Amino acid sequence: MKISFPKLIWFEKESVCFLDQRFLPLEEKVFSARGVEEVAYAIREMVIRGAPAIGIAGVFGMALAEKRGLSLLAAAKILKETRQTAHDLFYGIEWYLNRRREDGETRPELLAEEYYRTIVERCKRIGAFGEPFIKDGARVLTHCNAGALAVAEYGTALAPIFVAKEKGKDVFVYADETRPRLQGARLTCYELVKAGIKHRLIPDNAAGYYLSRGDIQLVIVGTDRVARNGDFANKIGTYEKAVVAKENGVPFYVAAPTSTIDFKLESGKEIPIEFRSENEVLYINGVRIAPLETRAENPAFDVTPAKFVTAFITEKGIFKPKEIRKLRDV
Amino acid sequence: MKISFPKLIWFEKESVCFLDQRFLPLEEKVFSARGVEEVAYAIREMVIRGAPAIGIAGVFGMALAEKRGLSLLAAAKILKETRQTAHDLFYGIEWYLNRRREDGETRPELLAEEYYRTIVERCKRIGAFGEPFIKDGARVLTHCNAGALAVAEYGTALAPIFVAKEKGKDVFVYADETRPRLQGARLTCYELVKAGIKHRLIPDNAAGYYLSRGDIQLVIVGTDRVARNGDFANKIGTYEKAVVAKENGVPFYVAAPTSTIDFKLESGKEIPIEFRSENEVLYINGVRIAPLETRAENPAFDVTPAKFVTAFITEKGIFKPKEIRKLRDV
Repeated sequence: MKISFPKLIWFEKESVCFLDQRFLPLEEKVFSARGVEEVAYAIREMVIRGAPAIGIAGVFGMALAEKRGLSLLAAAKILKETRQTAHDLFYGIEWYLNRRREDGETRPELLAEEYYRTIVERCKRIGAFGEPFIKDGARVLTHCNAGALAVAEYGTALAPIFVAKEKGKDVFVYADETRPRLQGARLTCYELVKAGIKHRLIPDNAAGYYLSRGDIQLVIVGTDRVARNGDFANKIGTYEKAVVAKENGVPFYVAAPTSTIDFKLESGKEIPIEFRSENEVLYINGVRIAPLETRAENPAFDVTPAKFVTAFITEKGIFKPKEIRKLRDV
Repeated sequence: MKISFPKLIWFEKESVCFLDQRFLPLEEKVFSARGVEEVAYAIREMVIRGAPAIGIAGVFGMALAEKRGLSLLAAAKILKETRQTAHDLFYGIEWYLNRRREDGETRPELLAEEYYRTIVERCKRIGAFGEPFIKDGARVLTHCNAGALAVAEYGTALAPIFVAKEKGKDVFVYADETRPRLQGARLTCYELVKAGIKHRLIPDNAAGYYLSRGDIQLVIVGTDRVARNGDFANKIGTYEKAVVAKENGVPFYVAAPTSTIDFKLESGKEIPIEFRSENEVLYINGVRIAPLETRAENPAFDVTPAKFVTAFITEKGIFKPKEIRKLRDV
């Protein structure tokens, strides 16, 4: 049974349209960006999020800017200043600039679609390479959202799960809710419901309980940036899950297209960590959860050292962390 | 400077009154229980929570039942069926029954006050024993709430911090928000604001980020039940913090009165874990955070093995996990 995925981003008349992820799962609204500044807003405010999806949004923003006759370098600057951790944003923008340099003819929308299809193709391959890790009857833990909404179609962390489901395997997912933005509760569960995959939502705090009891056979997460030594950044909380998985002997996989690898960085220490507004922590659905005098801190990502990673699942195959640095030449 | 603490529970006319913790920090409401069934409701619905405080509520419930002329054994049964993990509930109820057997004279309220004062005294001693672990300028991580609202006055995990503050030390607390019930955000921050202690609220997911960076010098948590071998149960998520603290060489202390030790249990495997309603996860402030088709799981506690505990801080002194079994005779 083929799974059908929610549509992430598309051109419509003179705009770039997004499924507005801020309102999911309860409302399916469309956000329409008529210029590059509005695409930048959509990235910054997390209308669209997830490293590969941010990369796609960056490319669509570049194409929109070109259609409007704006300077591509000015557009690149605006888009690059939106979010700092996801490597795909910088990769996608550079891809567009290079592609345009070698090909002055193809219409901007078609270049953007080309990038989009490339990522979709990579996700399918990630799914195919990762699927054998999921045995029939497996229970998988994932953190945050790395499915269609974070990437495109099969996604990254969810791709092996979707492919296992399509192959008829019995698969069950524990979805961490992923405070503070609740991408696990809102987006991963939304995708799992749509795909008909059995799952349970759990508080982030409960992952250790299930890992320690042997209820989870493997962990798969996505990533926002991978360094040459195999350290990687992902949504805040990923590091804790990785440490606790290792403590319990549970394999921990990181699924990503190679566009997420930043070959300029030797280690995870060099990955910039975005801090977002404290109000994402202090308010939930507009209601304050702490005293008015209390301040919060809100690092959006953490870095997990390579030693906690069983393997990376990429579109080029399965790699141990120490093999990441060789991937540039594959 | 002496810290003044919020009042937890008291007799007023023919009722037992509670500061209703469900509405903190934004509203300070009083919940008034006119009978033992209403005290049981207050425990079950978390009007009052925290293991030692549940024990005190149990004792006040017993006293209220006696004032009403009810059978003490019937009252004990009603109260014991409210929540299953906190050992103090069973300890407190047995204390009341024993105390009444040896002393048929003293008025019920006075017996209850005696138990309350005993716990307060133990907390002061926990604070005094634990305070030297907090160096001037230390940054401490805590999970959930184990202060005045979870215990009485100085509390358990917060007692060393309050005493350090009273002694004029510079102390800073990272408070985990503690999903799903947010006791860290709502109650610990409320107590820290009242006591004038510097702090930041963080998502549970962010504790590992700060631990891995060396920003935290020690972790102190409370506990709901300790087994003879030094394994202990505490609010869901505690286990993850303990594993990550050890990975980073950060000392991890558990503060508790000896009433929380269940000498009947050899190991943490025997501690019953309460599962609460999935709606505590699926709804926040009445707003659903996941698709309507999604189910959640909500284990309220997890068990941390003794190997992750640096030491227990009790009213009888500091003990290594392997010394817990000897404590019955101290």
